[in-house]
Amino acid sequence: MTIPKPVYNPPFNVTRASHAVFNVKDLAASRAFYVDLIGFVVSDEDNDAIYLRGVTEACHHSIVLKHATGPSTYERVGMRVFTEEDLDKAKAWFDKAGLAAGFVERPYQGRTLHVSDAQGTPLEFCATMDVEPRLVVAFEHHRGAVPQRLDHFQLLVPDVPRQCEFYMTMGFRLSEYISPDGTDDLMFVFLQRKGNPHDIVFAPGIGPRLHHVAFSIPESYHFFYVCDLAADLGFADNIEYGPGRHGPGHALFVYLRDPDGHRIELFNTHYQVMDIENEPVRWDASYAAKRRWQLPPRRQWYTEASLFAGVEPREPARRGDPLSLEKFLAVEK
Amino acid sequence: MTIPKPVYNPPFNVTRASHAVFNVKDLAASRAFYVDLIGFVVSDEDNDAIYLRGVTEACHHSIVLKHATGPSTYERVGMRVFTEEDLDKAKAWFDKAGLAAGFVERPYQGRTLHVSDAQGTPLEFCATMDVEPRLVVAFEHHRGAVPQRLDHFQLLVPDVPRQCEFYMTMGFRLSEYISPDGTDDLMFVFLQRKGNPHDIVFAPGIGPRLHHVAFSIPESYHFFYVCDLAADLGFADNIEYGPGRHGPGHALFVYLRDPDGHRIELFNTHYQVMDIENEPVRWDASYAAKRRWQLPPRRQWYTEASLFAGVEPREPARRGDPLSLEKFLAVEK
Amino acid sequence: MTIPKPVYNPPFNVTRASHAVFNVKDLAASRAFYVDLIGFVVSDEDNDAIYLRGVTEACHHSIVLKHATGPSTYERVGMRVFTEEDLDKAKAWFDKAGLAAGFVERPYQGRTLHVSDAQGTPLEFCATMDVEPRLVVAFEHHRGAVPQRLDHFQLLVPDVPRQCEFYMTMGFRLSEYISPDGTDDLMFVFLQRKGNPHDIVFAPGIGPRLHHVAFSIPESYHFFYVCDLAADLGFADNIEYGPGRHGPGHALFVYLRDPDGHRIELFNTHYQVMDIENEPVRWDASYAAKRRWQLPPRRQWYTEASLFAGVEPREPARRGDPLSLEKFLAVEK
Amino acid sequence: MTIPKPVYNPPFNVTRASHAVFNVKDLAASRAFYVDLIGFVVSDEDNDAIYLRGVTEACHHSIVLKHATGPSTYERVGMRVFTEEDLDKAKAWFDKAGLAAGFVERPYQGRTLHVSDAQGTPLEFCATMDVEPRLVVAFEHHRGAVPQRLDHFQLLVPDVPRQCEFYMTMGFRLSEYISPDGTDDLMFVFLQRKGNPHDIVFAPGIGPRLHHVAFSIPESYHFFYVCDLAADLGFADNIEYGPGRHGPGHALFVYLRDPDGHRIELFNTHYQVMDIENEPVRWDASYAAKRRWQLPPRRQWYTEASLFAGVEPREPARRGDPLSLEKFLAVEK
Repeated sequence: MTIPKPVYNPPFNVTRASHAVFNVKDLAASRAFYVDLIGFVVSDEDNDAIYLRGVTEACHHSIVLKHATGPSTYERVGMRVFTEEDLDKAKAWFDKAGLAAGFVERPYQGRTLHVSDAQGTPLEFCATMDVEPRLVVAFEHHRGAVPQRLDHFQLLVPDVPRQCEFYMTMGFRLSEYISPDGTDDLMFVFLQRKGNPHDIVFAPGIGPRLHHVAFSIPESYHFFYVCDLAADLGFADNIEYGPGRHGPGHALFVYLRDPDGHRIELFNTHYQVMDIENEPVRWDASYAAKRRWQLPPRRQWYTEASLFAGVEPREPARRGDPLSLEKFLAVEK
Repeated sequence: MTIPKPVYNPPFNVTRASHAVFNVKDLAASRAFYVDLIGFVVSDEDNDAIYLRGVTEACHHSIVLKHATGPSTYERVGMRVFTEEDLDKAKAWFDKAGLAAGFVERPYQGRTLHVSDAQGTPLEFCATMDVEPRLVVAFEHHRGAVPQRLDHFQLLVPDVPRQCEFYMTMGFRLSEYISPDGTDDLMFVFLQRKGNPHDIVFAPGIGPRLHHVAFSIPESYHFFYVCDLAADLGFADNIEYGPGRHGPGHALFVYLRDPDGHRIELFNTHYQVMDIENEPVRWDASYAAKRRWQLPPRRQWYTEASLFAGVEPREPARRGDPLSLEKFLAVEK
Repeated sequence: MTIPKPVYNPPFNVTRASHAVFNVKDLAASRAFYVDLIGFVVSDEDNDAIYLRGVTEACHHSIVLKHATGPSTYERVGMRVFTEEDLDKAKAWFDKAGLAAGFVERPYQGRTLHVSDAQGTPLEFCATMDVEPRLVVAFEHHRGAVPQRLDHFQLLVPDVPRQCEFYMTMGFRLSEYISPDGTDDLMFVFLQRKGNPHDIVFAPGIGPRLHHVAFSIPESYHFFYVCDLAADLGFADNIEYGPGRHGPGHALFVYLRDPDGHRIELFNTHYQVMDIENEPVRWDASYAAKRRWQLPPRRQWYTEASLFAGVEPREPARRGDPLSLEKFLAVEK
Repeated sequence: MTIPKPVYNPPFNVTRASHAVFNVKDLAASRAFYVDLIGFVVSDEDNDAIYLRGVTEACHHSIVLKHATGPSTYERVGMRVFTEEDLDKAKAWFDKAGLAAGFVERPYQGRTLHVSDAQGTPLEFCATMDVEPRLVVAFEHHRGAVPQRLDHFQLLVPDVPRQCEFYMTMGFRLSEYISPDGTDDLMFVFLQRKGNPHDIVFAPGIGPRLHHVAFSIPESYHFFYVCDLAADLGFADNIEYGPGRHGPGHALFVYLRDPDGHRIELFNTHYQVMDIENEPVRWDASYAAKRRWQLPPRRQWYTEASLFAGVEPREPARRGDPLSLEKFLAVEK
């Protein structure tokens, strides 16, 4: 397996991971989780949807919660391109690749392009959104974990190397990857556009499914505070894994499941990877799976993920067998 | 079961939990753990022992690591009394209770009284120690978790109510206790002298055995830093449980096992309980066992503890069946 | 000057600094400061008074804000004794000392003894208060600086050595003191009962006046958060000095003035000083005045303080000349 | 005054502020400051120079300390371009602009372009550096403030609007600016390339001179810790201003002077400004000068700055009169 070559002059300029669109059963329950517990700011809300942003975000929303009566699916991975011209270039590029792209109207967003990637992941691109006040120093509005901004998406896909190549052709750069020991196979890839380690991450599994959306939070203090508050507000069981420290990626993290089972990650901030000499960092799978200091995650953390609305997931060629907490305890015994 | 009455004019004045004496196999390995990782300050050391203190302690030592060739036992629970006169009163009181007490010489300590409590726990009392500089603002000497001071001991004993009564007769005050739901049985007791919630805690189990010694650390930051440093220094597997939040007791905690398997707790600071109107706080066992936000501890956290040198532990009348991580996962499945 | 001898068997058992009673012009303005900004919990309030406590306090109040139409004075230094019997012993002791003591009724407090010390400071002692829930882990009620509990009072008095001797006769122990370089004169004294460095501090100046009441707060994070919130809520000018680090005393601090000009200190937690071998720590005045890392306080921090209602302050024998910010800048220039 | 239009397709791709080159009198003294106190990692050092990086940096250096016998000047503002091709485009662009640009060799850097901007500021561009291990999770090597990475430069220049236009033509985007009340004059400008609020900031004054280089640090805790450590290591007087909170820019900060008087800022992390709809944020000069919660800086913070080696500074058309601490205290009096 060869690592695809980076494309320094991409066909269109994706700037960053932008917004997450969740279908949820009960807007009030979701609001309690995202606003009262996690601390997102409400930009707009009505009977059908709630639009949320982090306290450092001037864009209208990085989360859309849409009321839906069916199963709790995930709708689209939202990305930003730099200019309106990039949107047109994107449409042309996807069309040429045989992936039909079309413009739609989305509230509070500029012209929005819908398309699915080569493995069927529904994507959404826009160049602009309405602008809201940044509340970074409006401390009287800070609550819960004081979420700063959306950082990245992690997806399960049946064919990681193919997905990696597809996104690198779009201009994404590989920052880190995990390979089976002694190989250079792309088992798990971190891809970025914004100069931090990742905007989108692909892990092997039945997919495409959304494993989690990650949001940055400020300090050690906030990791404990949000867990403590979760216990007080009746969300203790929503804490799925952590707090802990990542191996690859390096950040402190805690994973929570929202009332519909959608998983979010709260983590702290990251290093820069914009320099051209920063070769992708390779990790042995055995090292990456190794406990840093926390115990391993429960099996559900590996296997459960949100379906994309209307997208039938496919099995990977080979199922993984990661070190779950259940397995860890069985071995320890 | 009636809760024993507090004794406001105790027979002698115990002021606080003071120092822990561990027998260890390899002083260098213990030093790496206690000094390089946790950050204790070395007051003195030679081939036979290392004397350690926390950065806010002016007393010579709150931990003594003694080199021992046999099994890794725990030697004595060290307590402070206020004056030399209290030591004499203590001796008289224990002798009268049929518990032979005798004075011994211990390095860096004033006159030291040895005695075992009614269930055989070896105790050691002194009124003074040599004085060392408090390093609370000697920031260049702060390392690891920056341990502040010894706070309390937790012991497993076969008969908690009897132990509670014995210590309350000595003047210890009950700050919190756990009872089987719907009863006032003293299943688990927190006893204090220094005006914080506990100097000594008794839990039911095969004993007397030392469950852990607890030391206070400053901030959220230090909980993560010490875990991160543990991973870097090869001590990841020594982290047994946490970080997490206590139900009864309220503090953030992390439990580690030292190279000999002795357990220590690092936790953050506590409220005051000196006022006379502070009735002991009662917790239902079902509530106390309930997950706050972290997952339950592994079974080993409940069952493993340090033997006291030369003391044969006894079975409790009834074995408990606490919610271990293993049980939790089996039920969840 | 000889340091008075400690009294190990005091005439009555004072356990700790307990509560502050402020006369304020506008209860709503004070509530905005103490509750919305600092984060105190309201135990009770009516048109005449607001009763506040910190989140780790189970006692009914550690602050009483009393509406008063006259000048913004301070009413009484509130102390706790251990038992009702201690109250009677206290009355007898004060009466014998020629300081008329009398019992009064105070809301939410047990029997309360009023007396003034030898320099005219109005004191109030009680053994019990009504009990309120400790909100230490009720995180949804934590606000602002998340004040934990009242810790100590600092007073300006014309004759510090005499005050020191008076309180030591009552059983207070001297933990630290500042002396003019090369002398042992008691220029500035830290006195304690609760086993931490101070319950009451006497500094030289026109008095008796109340310099500040100090409350403990949890972490570094809260020092910045409360300042940031102050700026947002219109209280920036109420921040008088800090955040900074104390020399003697060692804690991080920030001083604020409430809407009536009463000064409070928020600081973080302290070491234990209960051991008998802990001799009072002596500091040279030149060292204590030395900048630790923050710039010196403005002149007003040294000279301004709250008058006690109905008490005429007296001049000290000799006025000090401490290093104010104004003087520091003049020298630097 | 009109704000220059952003250039979305710049003549060459500057990616970020990269490295600072200081001339220092005594390498050992500088090492004590930058390594022992602040916590930078030494990538290389010899008798002539020390090369330092932050713990999240994989590039060889973000600070070069060069031993120099003359006055303590600042050498060059180091910037990164994306590719080697961008370097050639940059040379052509500067040459065409009448600013002679030439390639030089610099240790541990790829091909390096030297040029001075239109107001005489010496710049240095390179596309690559040698790669060193990122020590972001090598916690045993974290010291002092645990500096993460270089973030931005602030310069004093006599003509801010002209400088702003020059850099915007190069592709820099204006993120925030301060204007005299009621005008849109560019009095103070924040310019960025990396998607955070600033890579280079221009303030009005005698110049070009370097006001400071800023480095990000992790948490509230580290602000206090580095100040505390400074006091212990004899660097208390090097703390010039802060900790405090910025108005424009929003970050927590502390400014220190190194042993040669070069000023550095330690601050915490920032929001993203990559979206095209993010119009530059305008601040009234009166608002920006307003105290947030800390007191204003001393006069020296406004007037003192590092000279560029061999560059004669020029007077601005009009001298400012900012609110210094000296002025603040005079008015308060």
